[in-house]
Amino acid sequence: MSASSIQSLPGFREFLPETCALRNYLFETWRAAARRYAFVEYEGPVLEPTELYRRKSGDEIVKQLFHFTDAGGREVAMRPETTPSLARMAAAAHKGRRKPMKWFQIGPCFRYERQQKGRGREFYQFNCDILGEPSVAADADLIALSIDVMRGLGFREGDFLVRLSDRNVWPDFLAKAGVAAENLPAFLQIIDKMEREKPALTAERLEALGTNREAVDAFIGEQGADWPPLQALLADLTARGLSGFVSVDLGIVRGLAYYTGAVFEIFDIRKGMRAVAGGGRYDNLCQLIGGNDLPACGFAMGDMVIGDFLNETPHAKARYETWLAGYNKIGAFVVIADETRRPDALATVQALRSAGIATDYNYLPAKVDKQFQTAEALGAKIAVIIGAEFPEVRLKDLARRTEQAIPFTGLSEAAAAVLAQV
Amino acid sequence: MSASSIQSLPGFREFLPETCALRNYLFETWRAAARRYAFVEYEGPVLEPTELYRRKSGDEIVKQLFHFTDAGGREVAMRPETTPSLARMAAAAHKGRRKPMKWFQIGPCFRYERQQKGRGREFYQFNCDILGEPSVAADADLIALSIDVMRGLGFREGDFLVRLSDRNVWPDFLAKAGVAAENLPAFLQIIDKMEREKPALTAERLEALGTNREAVDAFIGEQGADWPPLQALLADLTARGLSGFVSVDLGIVRGLAYYTGAVFEIFDIRKGMRAVAGGGRYDNLCQLIGGNDLPACGFAMGDMVIGDFLNETPHAKARYETWLAGYNKIGAFVVIADETRRPDALATVQALRSAGIATDYNYLPAKVDKQFQTAEALGAKIAVIIGAEFPEVRLKDLARRTEQAIPFTGLSEAAAAVLAQV
Repeated sequence: MSASSIQSLPGFREFLPETCALRNYLFETWRAAARRYAFVEYEGPVLEPTELYRRKSGDEIVKQLFHFTDAGGREVAMRPETTPSLARMAAAAHKGRRKPMKWFQIGPCFRYERQQKGRGREFYQFNCDILGEPSVAADADLIALSIDVMRGLGFREGDFLVRLSDRNVWPDFLAKAGVAAENLPAFLQIIDKMEREKPALTAERLEALGTNREAVDAFIGEQGADWPPLQALLADLTARGLSGFVSVDLGIVRGLAYYTGAVFEIFDIRKGMRAVAGGGRYDNLCQLIGGNDLPACGFAMGDMVIGDFLNETPHAKARYETWLAGYNKIGAFVVIADETRRPDALATVQALRSAGIATDYNYLPAKVDKQFQTAEALGAKIAVIIGAEFPEVRLKDLARRTEQAIPFTGLSEAAAAVLAQV
Repeated sequence: MSASSIQSLPGFREFLPETCALRNYLFETWRAAARRYAFVEYEGPVLEPTELYRRKSGDEIVKQLFHFTDAGGREVAMRPETTPSLARMAAAAHKGRRKPMKWFQIGPCFRYERQQKGRGREFYQFNCDILGEPSVAADADLIALSIDVMRGLGFREGDFLVRLSDRNVWPDFLAKAGVAAENLPAFLQIIDKMEREKPALTAERLEALGTNREAVDAFIGEQGADWPPLQALLADLTARGLSGFVSVDLGIVRGLAYYTGAVFEIFDIRKGMRAVAGGGRYDNLCQLIGGNDLPACGFAMGDMVIGDFLNETPHAKARYETWLAGYNKIGAFVVIADETRRPDALATVQALRSAGIATDYNYLPAKVDKQFQTAEALGAKIAVIIGAEFPEVRLKDLARRTEQAIPFTGLSEAAAAVLAQV
């Protein structure tokens, strides 16, 4: 056996306590926003039959998966997303449940892909889905949530934009242009890539289908918000005071084949319109995966791009830093001024923790000065000094530099009272 | 494509909202206990090089893993535990950090094993480790935490017992019995299985090493708590008032080869001494895995056995149910009494959510009675009724059945005030 260190795999992340803090901030903020919107949390398996992803996304998806044959001979894959598991679970469990079902989930996902900024092979995803409601009122509530997730993270109008579209406008265009309806999926793939691809390539592809870029651009310009379902969506968001965050752009169609209605993406306005989240309506997936008809819409946000975006946006970063200032700070540090009193100090530590106060102390004898330094380093708000005068103890407010003598029996209450003020 | 449903894999769990609640209760209670003890959270990768587990546990471990060759030709495995990742991370990152490092983690783990009650192929594990401190004072703080995790879940003295031992007592026994020191690992394997295995088989194996069951039992009986490190540990726990939860039992050695000192297991007293958590000191692992010397001790608890134990223990279950009564309940439900006022209702929903109040409403027009039924079903504490008299709204306290008329501009404050009382 070599004693050399075994490194983690490329694209996989180690969250040391200082980086785990940002992850936990995202999780907390996501969860709080979803709960304000009356969503309830669920979770699916991290490993699934490969067929689950093949059925939703076709054979192409498999090469982007961590997939293998397990010891029981099953073709399995680590999940690249949670929606297929959700569709199965919801389709199987929806009977007898109140509709709509508003469900959210936070968990790890895996994709075998080339590493680049904002993309890892292991990442966390936040998923929010509304199941059992076909009305655009559900799409509107979902989009409002996606905006409030961004605002909960400290982003403002001008930082990001929700670009909104509806896939159902395009069959009209194809009919007028004389393009056969069966070309819709191929056509949407071209529209989806239009912003990122060379214009000549887009033009060539559109012409192969029997239309052209000018006709597409004219349709996008004319139609805009005139499509009735989009009008209803915008009216709903306007009533909430959220219209400033939304813009209709029929060029947004989302690459994934399973969307059936309204689709949207959230973009970072400054950074070349980088996408930070996306979603839409997928009314057929629960039938396809789970064999039960259940209209649905949902959106997903990963932790990596949003983390970068947060770090690049001063007011969003400032909100995180305010949160961070209270994170991992302890309430009390027990200073052992007389080593013969260590058993009493341990009883004190226990009493403070039992009162719900995060408490630490030195495992080994140390000078009192040194112990106070540790208390400061841990962000302790109070120090409790145990010395020869025990069961009288000294309670020091480390912010105000005030000190009081307290009998041990009254310590927890006194400590809680001081902590409630700082 | 078949429309048949694709089932989840055997041993993998789907957490519908009602089962996700117990998972979240465990996570919250674990996290709160660890933070009271001044532990900070970290996380490692879910997929690691297979060699990481082979190095810690030997080749035997591989057949219990979900392992495969990835598309880049790497031998990889889904983690069966988090300690090897922790050892690598801590060994690499410990320089310049204040010692001890008190770190905790909660996340999914995977084992390919036969399914049985309390064991799944995917489960969650809670890990607490103290790194950089060789003194038994650290072991004592860790064991105290494990006890307070159990108490935080509502378990009491008489429900569970921490059985405590120290692997270092056994070399003495072997020396006196004339058994060669290199047989220690084989000997400890026999002791570890002694309670579960047929006495004849244990006797045969001990005799093969040159000793016998009578000598072992006599040593366990005589030594007990006389071993100085165990005495120090017990004295520490006694000072905290926790001695009633602990019993020395030298027959507890833990199967895993990497333990180097004190070891302990938490047992369910009633259910045939089922183990619910375990841990101990492992001073060599950070060197072995990460190439840096770092003494350490830690314990782990899975979510499945403790969940069963909780459900079988009425007072622990009652504590969970008290928590559950507040979980997933919303604060406000907006009742739309006049459908022409829906835009005002949406503005109301937005205002309440922006004030941090979990709020829901009906997506489609419905009778007022029906809307109140939904409010009750969602556990709403207040209903806000939007009708023709808007911008005056009615605020109804659903518990006290009191109602007040409020101008829309003052609604969020009034709603918060009512919610603060119920």
